[in-house]
Amino acid sequence: MNKVVIFGVGLIGGSFALALKKAGAVREIVGVGRSATSMARALELGIIDSIGVSGEPSLAAALHDADLVLLAAPVAQTAAILASIAPHLAAGTVVTDAGSTKSDVVAAARQVLGDKVAQFVPGHPIAGRETNGPDAAIDHLYIGKKVVLTALAENDEADVERVAAAWRACGALIHRLTPEEHDKVFAAVSHLPHLLAYALVDDVANKPHADLLFQYAASGFRDFTRIAGSSPEMWRDISLANQPALLAELDAYMAQLTQLRTHLAAHDGAALERVYSNAQHARHQWITAIEAAEAPQSPDKAG
Amino acid sequence: MNKVVIFGVGLIGGSFALALKKAGAVREIVGVGRSATSMARALELGIIDSIGVSGEPSLAAALHDADLVLLAAPVAQTAAILASIAPHLAAGTVVTDAGSTKSDVVAAARQVLGDKVAQFVPGHPIAGRETNGPDAAIDHLYIGKKVVLTALAENDEADVERVAAAWRACGALIHRLTPEEHDKVFAAVSHLPHLLAYALVDDVANKPHADLLFQYAASGFRDFTRIAGSSPEMWRDISLANQPALLAELDAYMAQLTQLRTHLAAHDGAALERVYSNAQHARHQWITAIEAAEAPQSPDKAG
Repeated sequence: MNKVVIFGVGLIGGSFALALKKAGAVREIVGVGRSATSMARALELGIIDSIGVSGEPSLAAALHDADLVLLAAPVAQTAAILASIAPHLAAGTVVTDAGSTKSDVVAAARQVLGDKVAQFVPGHPIAGRETNGPDAAIDHLYIGKKVVLTALAENDEADVERVAAAWRACGALIHRLTPEEHDKVFAAVSHLPHLLAYALVDDVANKPHADLLFQYAASGFRDFTRIAGSSPEMWRDISLANQPALLAELDAYMAQLTQLRTHLAAHDGAALERVYSNAQHARHQWITAIEAAEAPQSPDKAG
Repeated sequence: MNKVVIFGVGLIGGSFALALKKAGAVREIVGVGRSATSMARALELGIIDSIGVSGEPSLAAALHDADLVLLAAPVAQTAAILASIAPHLAAGTVVTDAGSTKSDVVAAARQVLGDKVAQFVPGHPIAGRETNGPDAAIDHLYIGKKVVLTALAENDEADVERVAAAWRACGALIHRLTPEEHDKVFAAVSHLPHLLAYALVDDVANKPHADLLFQYAASGFRDFTRIAGSSPEMWRDISLANQPALLAELDAYMAQLTQLRTHLAAHDGAALERVYSNAQHARHQWITAIEAAEAPQSPDKAG
């Protein structure tokens, strides 16, 4: 590609830039963002080649002749960014994003971009997000990681392929789901666990003897609640953005807890053991499958 | 001590034996267990000096002149082991255990030991249990770890001190709670999280599209559900043994989820963020406190 424009040059956007550069897959990268400090730092670190500015007419210049635009700013800004770039979007430019939810992004894109929504290919790289800022960016973040593209009926297959090829150049594995499938899957395996972990820590912290409780919490509690260390603002936004699917998963889980409560109240050890055993077995199979899949692709399992 | 008898020489009992030996705190260790293979292996590894046999009169010989008896077999065997040793328990012998629940153990001990319950000092070492068997035993398992003693009103303080001194010789830090306090604390910070993790994995595994879901589960899900890899039999027993406290914690948690569901259904981002922020903040403070407390005592944080 000749020119890539990235909105937000923290862990996700910055790592995308570094990986593309390392692969020799791009000639010029323009960074755009609200924090002048972050942009200057990204320029200093060689993540981007120049800084585009949000206001007119600078944004027009930044987007001129761009092959690809990646939205990697906080998801709450997605609609505003799409609205700001819409007037300057040439026919040859493809836009993608890195948001953790997709149905809401697609709805916003349809509303803001109108006919130009055909140029928007929604995406979601599945990569850790516990650090942020340009200094967190690394060129190998996406190696062996999944990127889910949720292409629209309006998309040109060549445009989808342009986005896929960029992520492949970063070392990622491309998966395709519909936006609805994507949101159901991540409600179950990511959004619900975050809500549950936050709920448990808040529950413990609000008890009168919280200090005593935390004193005896050990490694099991530490791992179970690790995701409750994530950004509250980001997870508030994700919870709201994927509200319908998250509510459905939460209801299913609460029904499951109600059933376990019944077994426990009835001292039904056999029923408890069936649930525990099924879970242990399923988790063991999953871990075995992951390890088998990861081994040949990514020797660096810490990544 | 002159002689220590250990029922069950896996990770917990075997590591206790090795640590006592390393500290030079015991002259002779007798192991007792149901698996002849495990006992032979423990002897071969130098964990124990001789094998005591469960049946009469060998058990009498094993217990003769013992200073301390540790019950480290699966908790479901506790009452039976106490009943088997009761007739042979000399006045100078102190008995302790390593079970994850205490009220039920105390009730069983009172019933089985009668007046001799004064010689039983209940305990719970807070140490990992993901591996087992004599080969898992290590001499440094308890360094810097907590051991909770839940002494009874009937206990002689000198007997409690004998148990405490043995654990201190293994490098452990002694904490004291009542059996009821202990069970409430561990219901909240250990037993409930296990139940919640098992429930989530079982919930996901039972969905028609489970394969698709597991395919996209990432490191957050992996850590959240790590404890669902634990022994279903052991956690069935713990759940039943601590049923009243666990039910109370489960009810509090379900009430918390019901409230979060209300916020989510109402799109109340501020309320969600309050819960998430409070949790993130509490967890951060807890982790900071652990790290500060662990740093000087145990440089090996992987332990």
